[in-house]
Parts: sequence; C-alpha cells; structure tokens
Amino acid sequence: MNPVVSVFRHPPDGGRGYHRDTRVRWALEEVGQPYSLRYVTFSEMRRPDYMQLQPFGQMPVYQEGDLTLFESGAIVLHIAQRFAGLLPGGPDARSRSIMWMFAAVNTIEPCIASGSVGYLEQRLQQLALVLGEKTWFEGEDFSVGDLMMVSVLRPLKDSDILKQSRRLQNYVACGEEREAFQRALNAPPSVRRTSGRSDENLSVENFAL
Amino acid sequence: MNPVVSVFRHPPDGGRGYHRDTRVRWALEEVGQPYSLRYVTFSEMRRPDYMQLQPFGQMPVYQEGDLTLFESGAIVLHIAQRFAGLLPGGPDARSRSIMWMFAAVNTIEPCIASGSVGYLEQRLQQLALVLGEKTWFEGEDFSVGDLMMVSVLRPLKDSDILKQSRRLQNYVACGEEREAFQRALNAPPSVRRTSGRSDENLSVENFAL
Repeated sequence: MNPVVSVFRHPPDGGRGYHRDTRVRWALEEVGQPYSLRYVTFSEMRRPDYMQLQPFGQMPVYQEGDLTLFESGAIVLHIAQRFAGLLPGGPDARSRSIMWMFAAVNTIEPCIASGSVGYLEQRLQQLALVLGEKTWFEGEDFSVGDLMMVSVLRPLKDSDILKQSRRLQNYVACGEEREAFQRALNAPPSVRRTSGRSDENLSVENFAL
Repeated sequence: MNPVVSVFRHPPDGGRGYHRDTRVRWALEEVGQPYSLRYVTFSEMRRPDYMQLQPFGQMPVYQEGDLTLFESGAIVLHIAQRFAGLLPGGPDARSRSIMWMFAAVNTIEPCIASGSVGYLEQRLQQLALVLGEKTWFEGEDFSVGDLMMVSVLRPLKDSDILKQSRRLQNYVACGEEREAFQRALNAPPSVRRTSGRSDENLSVENFAL
C-alpha cells in the first residue's frame, strides 16, 4: 500500500510550496515512490481524529501501513532511509547528509524564525562558505540534507538577504530546478484532481472520508 | 579510536548540563561507548581551525576517525544508529523514536526559544497528552527521542510552565535519574580532570593541542 501524505486543501501560501508538506512530497518524488494525498482543511486539523495523528495539529502527517509519522524532518529522513536515492552510500557521508538536515531545521530555520537579520546574515555567510563552489553540501550528489536546506531557504529567495549570496541563490535555484521538486510543486493536488490527469503515482482522498 | 567530543572549558550554565554537548555525552554514556573530551574556550570557538570543524562556531563537535559532525541532533542520531542501545528493534518504532527527536528540536525547542508563553503552554499540554501515563514516548523503553526531548525540556524544570504538568515533570525527572545521564552531568570534565580519577572510558585534551 502506498504511503499517504496529508496536504492543505487550501494552502495559505497560494501554492508556492513553502509549507512543510512540500518537503515530504519532494522526497517521495525524488525516490520515485508512488503515494496518495489526503486533503485536510484548517478546521479538520483541529479535530480530535486529526490530532490523534498529529498531536500539535500541524501539517504534515505521513501514513505507511501501520506507521504514522509527523514532523517533516522525521518523515523525510524515514523516506530517505526506507527508499533508495536520497542518501549517499558511505556511512560517513550518510551521517554528514543527515547532519545538514539538522543544520537546516535546528540552526537555519530557527534563525529565520527569530527575525534577527544580523544573526541570519551571519549564519548564511557561514553556510555559503561551507558550500563553497560545490553544487550540493556533500559534493556532486544531491542528498536528503540538500532537500531540507533548500526547503528551509526557499522562502527567502526573493529577499535581499539571500540576494547577497550568489552561492546560496544558485543553490536554491538548483534545488528548485530538479524534476522531482517541480513534480511536487507544479502539480499541486488541486490541479491534479481537477485536470482529470491520470497519474498512476498519485491518488487523492479527503481526510474526512 | 574512541570518538572525541568537544566540551566547554568554562560552561556558561555553571555545569547544569543545559548546553548541547551534554546530549552527546549522555548518548555516549547510554550506549556505553568510551570517548574522549576536547576542551574548548569561547575564544577558541571563533578561531578558523575550530570553524573548519563547526562552521557556525557553536558547540559541540564530534570526531570519530575521519568523520566530523556538528549539530547535536545529528550527532546523537549518529551515535544511536552506530551503537546499540538507543533505538528500538522494530523499524516502525525506530522511525517513531527519531520522530520524537525532531519534535524536540524542531517543534518544542523553537517554541521555548520564541518566548511565547501561551504558545509553549499549548504545545506542552499537547505533548503531555501524547505521553499519557507512559514512562517514555515509545512506551517502556527509553530511546533517542526521549534523550532529546528530556534535554530540550530540562531548562524549564524549575519554571512554572513545567510545574503545571505533573506528567512532564515526572518525565524529565525520570530522564535525569538515569545513570548514564548522571555520569554525563555529575562528572563534568573539569572535575574528572582535577580529581585524578582514573576512568578508562574518558580522556581529555585541549583543543589547541
């Protein structure tokens, strides 16, 4: 049975893919794993049956057989460890890829949320320095760490703070250009559903069903 | 060769174990892996040779052979996946344990950092509801998710906000009572070094050496 991923019925960002469910769809598209979507409205996210799956009433929820997961970082890591394609082969490189996931969600993302421009500027300069002229943080191959880092940086892409760094701008652009990302972003569930497109990798259902 | 973990030469918290290096030592103590400590001062953390290891100039750094990791969450997860003792046997339970790590560092910790009491109260109520009467989040067995969640909640333990929840207070206390935690906390490196205690699991060195 294919994994089921929750998705906003009416994404507050107007479909720009800035919400955390996008990361999960992106990961599934990268590994080529078919999945289903489950539409959820804001009022449904406050209902006891949803809170049973996601105790903080947030997005997203991931269901695969008897396993229910929340926290986009945990879900993306689960997908990367369960299906091939998002983690390097060597054990040290795997640990470093996972390190960049944590750097994204526990250093960069809180720094963005803090609203402190000076602090964020410093962190982004440090980040750009590590990236150097590499395409991805672990070199030639895109990994789960890049998926999370690009996801976390994307909402800054039109801001002056990211425009100060050519490297990080390019990095985000390279992430967005990936076919798997485009599939996750450009075929949002509402479009797919109304287009009548037949896509064997995707099925949709309502949460309330 | 044993892993080497960086540690504050002069911990700003006065040795209460609230800094992120404590989590790493705790994890190593839980799995029974001998390790060495590397003292670092604040001025050394700004030096290029330290920034080469930890690009954000933060604590901690973990070195194991050719592998260098930063981000306490990534290090703790690496230890849990590398050495037995901190992850459940079943694949679903493993993924859920890792989920609680991400909930700690990406939902609860940023919520504490936000300084919004109302928001934090709500999150802690939701957390206590999931914990219920269980000892740990995955039931009977302590896991890497509990290690991170207890670490994140500990700084709140004398606050009114945690005192509102008997469950979470007990949960933090159960974590702190673990022998491995006590070893990580109560034998801080300065004490061990000056006591002349011979501990085959521990050696210390200076970063600058």
